[in-house]
Amino acid sequence: MTWERYDSRVCSVARTMEVLGERWTMLIVRDLFNGVRRFDALHRHIGVARDVLTRRLEALMDAGLVERTSYREEGARERYEYRLTSAGRDLRPILVAIMDWGDAHLAGADGPPLELTHDACGAGVHTHLVCDEGHAIGTTTRLHAATKPGARLLVASHKD
Amino acid sequence: MTWERYDSRVCSVARTMEVLGERWTMLIVRDLFNGVRRFDALHRHIGVARDVLTRRLEALMDAGLVERTSYREEGARERYEYRLTSAGRDLRPILVAIMDWGDAHLAGADGPPLELTHDACGAGVHTHLVCDEGHAIGTTTRLHAATKPGARLLVASHKD
Repeated sequence: MTWERYDSRVCSVARTMEVLGERWTMLIVRDLFNGVRRFDALHRHIGVARDVLTRRLEALMDAGLVERTSYREEGARERYEYRLTSAGRDLRPILVAIMDWGDAHLAGADGPPLELTHDACGAGVHTHLVCDEGHAIGTTTRLHAATKPGARLLVASHKD
Repeated sequence: MTWERYDSRVCSVARTMEVLGERWTMLIVRDLFNGVRRFDALHRHIGVARDVLTRRLEALMDAGLVERTSYREEGARERYEYRLTSAGRDLRPILVAIMDWGDAHLAGADGPPLELTHDACGAGVHTHLVCDEGHAIGTTTRLHAATKPGARLLVASHKD
């Protein structure tokens, strides 16, 4: 396959980054995973401007990753709580892969700030690249990329 | 752990998204993984404006994920080729996790455009969330997050 001859806009990475590729979006997803569900709490914890947070939450809802429910505390006006949908919870391997990479490459002198463990057994949780035959895929293991029916050839608008 | 009480800026997800969280960056990384190494080829294939591509490549070089080497074709001026460093190649689990999610949730009627296989055995390659005891972690498996020495408490500037 000559990757350059194919339209990269139908690529699943491109499509996913259209949803997740805005600054703050993955941090909102991270906080939702960690149980931060209210607008004010998200605003305060992430340090994102309120108007940006509003837009990012709306984009996440439009994409079907987040849903909003209303609640009302005694004597207060109606407020909203945000939760990941099933498609949103499917982002967990991406989030943990990002955390693993940051732990390995960007942690400060004190090491990583957080450890994720499996509640049932206490062991650390990480992402692994594995083939369907069970072989571990390292950073230099050769992979092959083949086009499938969803691929589109680029329409040539130039000579090369 | 009360996640909201900790400073989310030292989080490895936040630190990683400072590097990767700009629009186009993951697409540049994807193309570099797929062997697209020249500026013009990246510009053409991704469809990113030249000035944006220049800035993103510089940020990736500053972060140590990409390195540049010069080459000169017969009769042409000196040009550059961009390659992932070792830290850059470590992004593969993130990239494949993103691709897996897009394949599952955003593919069109024709299905995913690309299949990634292990060269040595031909089996499909995917990112998996696994604990160190070997248990598969599903989207609803309960995880526990514990702070480590790199964590920082938020300095309270508000009452709550």
